[in-house]
Amino acid sequence: MSRAVTAPRPGPYLGIDIGATKVLVGLVTPDGRLLAHSDRVVHSNEGLEEVLARVHEGIGRLGSTAPPIAAGVAVAAQVDPRDGTVLYAPNLRWRDVPLGPRLSKELGVPVRVENDVRAAVWGEWVHGAGRGSTEVLGLFIGTGVGGAVISDGRLLHGARFAAGEIGHSTLVAGGRRCHCPNRGCLEAYIGGWAIAERAQEAVADDPVAGGRLVETAGGGTAITAATVATLARAGDPLATRLANETSDYLAAAAVGLVNAFNPERLILGGGLLAHWPELALGVPGALSERCQPPAARAVTVTFAALRHHASVIGAATLAAASAR
Amino acid sequence: MSRAVTAPRPGPYLGIDIGATKVLVGLVTPDGRLLAHSDRVVHSNEGLEEVLARVHEGIGRLGSTAPPIAAGVAVAAQVDPRDGTVLYAPNLRWRDVPLGPRLSKELGVPVRVENDVRAAVWGEWVHGAGRGSTEVLGLFIGTGVGGAVISDGRLLHGARFAAGEIGHSTLVAGGRRCHCPNRGCLEAYIGGWAIAERAQEAVADDPVAGGRLVETAGGGTAITAATVATLARAGDPLATRLANETSDYLAAAAVGLVNAFNPERLILGGGLLAHWPELALGVPGALSERCQPPAARAVTVTFAALRHHASVIGAATLAAASAR
Repeated sequence: MSRAVTAPRPGPYLGIDIGATKVLVGLVTPDGRLLAHSDRVVHSNEGLEEVLARVHEGIGRLGSTAPPIAAGVAVAAQVDPRDGTVLYAPNLRWRDVPLGPRLSKELGVPVRVENDVRAAVWGEWVHGAGRGSTEVLGLFIGTGVGGAVISDGRLLHGARFAAGEIGHSTLVAGGRRCHCPNRGCLEAYIGGWAIAERAQEAVADDPVAGGRLVETAGGGTAITAATVATLARAGDPLATRLANETSDYLAAAAVGLVNAFNPERLILGGGLLAHWPELALGVPGALSERCQPPAARAVTVTFAALRHHASVIGAATLAAASAR
Repeated sequence: MSRAVTAPRPGPYLGIDIGATKVLVGLVTPDGRLLAHSDRVVHSNEGLEEVLARVHEGIGRLGSTAPPIAAGVAVAAQVDPRDGTVLYAPNLRWRDVPLGPRLSKELGVPVRVENDVRAAVWGEWVHGAGRGSTEVLGLFIGTGVGGAVISDGRLLHGARFAAGEIGHSTLVAGGRRCHCPNRGCLEAYIGGWAIAERAQEAVADDPVAGGRLVETAGGGTAITAATVATLARAGDPLATRLANETSDYLAAAAVGLVNAFNPERLILGGGLLAHWPELALGVPGALSERCQPPAARAVTVTFAALRHHASVIGAATLAAASAR
């Protein structure tokens, strides 16, 4: 398992973040600085060859740089980092893709593949909001909810590299349907898709109260989490209620997760929180009031620091740790 | 952190389990067999001196045996295993007790102190239901609910040795009051005290349906989890409903925890399940139907194998690992 004990060889390292709709590429120094990075390269999700062409396009856009020593790839997928296989990437429709060996051959350097949230939390731990601690819990909220755990300076993998999937821990037994086969998952309450779904249901239940949400979004089924955020800030009562409920769910989840993992640092990240950080304002108070005393005393809450480059920096840093 | 990689020195090792009302002592071989054990020695919880007198009484009852190489102590407490301090044992009313150094001096051997559930899960991992796996999640249900996690062959401690306190992960956001400061904890639904409380509330809500529960217990406030178990087996409708609800809560919790930790082995133990194993019958099916696919495929559910000696055997085995 990955440990960052000794200094990596002098870089740079290539970091690649393959998402459902775009590719990000960056060149990262051993101390975590981005020497160069591509803008987002949009891919059209037409399969491995098309996505890899976009990866090479992104690398080309970095300009003339020192050749990298190794590359790290972060993928929104279940991966096996031992051999670089992408086991299952539902959004990319990939199954059992030997991404690491393929890219290693094409780039001529060793390639490390990791799940994107795990890579992001690793990056935050080594170079961002988790620096200086050895016990980190990362909770990343975007359309979905992901997580990763660093304990005793190791990235927890679990039996099949799925440890830290705290978005699918049960928050309300018997509760809302999730996109996964479980009910009542954390993601089914605070993921971007779930906030949108809850808002659309609330509007259908009370069209009068939901008038501004419908109007702003241009239709009831067009309401997104961003619509709710905008109108909560504008003081709309229904949007405010939805925002407060979301904050309460997040706080309740955070208390339970901090009890279960006893981290030193809880790092809150992901696109939704980057745009709507108010949702997390209640978390520190909830942890200190409602966690078990040893868990409450140990934990500090911070926002992710590396923003949308966390996976690129994390993947490059994992590659550096592997290449040493 | 503890690892069981090399063979321990030839034993025996002393295992001591200090609970809220009794002390258990056993002499354990390096391969986990109990050479001798005391019956339970009841203590009257009058403080450290009285409890330690009962520990020595238990050791005396082992009869003439080979002198132990080291001793392990399992305590229902938050402990710091690095220096053997019991930080906080609410039931024993101990705070910051240097139990390890004290017993080490009295016994003349190195002493390792651990939380009792952590010791039990370690014992199950090395010598019981967890053998052969490297990723274990132990969920122990008694009056309270405790847990411990072994990942990559290490006992997770977290920042303050409280990792694995899955009894206080949130199962129902905003739900029932727990004995801890949180609401909706797993323990507040399936711990022995919580089953009793839920049953007493159900009887108060519907005295007619609760007639047999009240009669069997000898009064509404005398209903315990055991009363519910007995009457559920006898087909009483209210007791059956309570049992089914408890099973559903346990299954929902297990799904979320297996998603979050991705264990190879989920070990279900503790006094309540030992006497009421039917509660767990739905767990394997729920895991395979409702967990994320990689988590579902990886996990096997087993009952704890070492019964009420798990903490004694586990503590002795941890002492063996430390003494090597």
